[in-house]
Order: sequence, then structure tokens, then C-alpha cells
Amino acid sequence: MTKLDPDDGYAVLINTFEVEPDHVDELIAILQEATEGVMRNVPGFVSANLHVSDDRTRVVNYAQWKSRDAFAKMKDFPGAGEHMGKAASIAKSFDPVIYSLRFSDSKR
Amino acid sequence: MTKLDPDDGYAVLINTFEVEPDHVDELIAILQEATEGVMRNVPGFVSANLHVSDDRTRVVNYAQWKSRDAFAKMKDFPGAGEHMGKAASIAKSFDPVIYSLRFSDSKR
Repeated sequence: MTKLDPDDGYAVLINTFEVEPDHVDELIAILQEATEGVMRNVPGFVSANLHVSDDRTRVVNYAQWKSRDAFAKMKDFPGAGEHMGKAASIAKSFDPVIYSLRFSDSKR
Repeated sequence: MTKLDPDDGYAVLINTFEVEPDHVDELIAILQEATEGVMRNVPGFVSANLHVSDDRTRVVNYAQWKSRDAFAKMKDFPGAGEHMGKAASIAKSFDPVIYSLRFSDSKR
């Protein structure tokens, strides 16, 4: 990772999905499709980064938005609700939390 | 964020601390000190990125390690255990989970 910047003012969404291991690949596919088909067209989208835990019981989306306002408005963007509903129906639970980056240190 | 690379083979540690809002700044200070004083000297360390939730009940460290083996060996590095113990004593709970990055999309 290139050094992140705590002064960028971004809203960092860390959304943790609990999932059956058998459904991990389907959930990743839906979230990838949501990112490429909808989210990257939403004003204020910066990045989405999908992760799978080694035990395949969790999927995390680490996403950056330019502001909290942009993230809030995303929910009304055409197609966003549909994709989020699909992801929610496959996961056992999900827990979207908004963070601020406070400190970053990198050797690269 | 510059585009992350799902082919980098990194072990991504996402460690979520639950914390009393009054203890957030102390916890961040300890984790920052641990990163700068110890972790960045451990072979295989790539980055640490400390986040605070808007409601100040959670702190997340998103950290990259070159390999799972490097992360496992970190625990025996001089000073690592001491810092981790301090952080654990201030947090109500912590939940370190190792992930692989599967997909990354960025507009920057």
C-alpha cells in the first residue's frame, strides 16, 4: 500500500460481512459487480477493496468515499439499493461502520 | 488510496478494537508507538493504518504483512508482546483476523 493520508478527509467504510464459507465466492462476485457496475459511477466514490478471511467466514469491503455526505447519498443512486439487497441476502450479517484514518505508516 | 494489488500475496490483518470513547486517543497513541517503535522494524512489516469510528467505540488497524509467516513471527519480536498487552488492557475487546485481498477498484 502506498502511504495513506490521514488529512484526506475521506470517509472510510469498513463493512464486515459474516458468511457461510460456501457463499464467499458468490458474495465477492456480487460486491465486485456492484462496484464496477454502480459504485464507481457514484459521485464521491474513491475505492473499494474486497477481502476474504483465511477461514472464509468473513468478507470485508474497505471502501473510501470523498465525504460522509457522498456516502450517504450513494444509497439513493440508481442500482445501489438492489445490489446491497442482493449482498445482504447472501450474507448471514453485515456491519457497515464509517471511520476516519488517524495514522498511517508504511515501509513502501 | 493507490490501487492495491490482489496478487501481492500479502497477509492483511484487520484488527478491530472495541473501546470506551474516552480511551480512543490513548489506544491510538499506544498503537502508533507500537508501529513506529517496534512493528516497522519487524521483518515482513509493510504498513499499519489506524482508524477511529465516527461514534468513537471502535479502532481498526488495517495492517499489511508480506506473508502469514512474517506476521506469526512478529509475536516473538522483542517489544511486540509488551505493546500488544498494553493495547489489550485499554480496549474492551480486540479481534485480529487475517484476510487476503481479492479485488480492488479505485478511481485514483
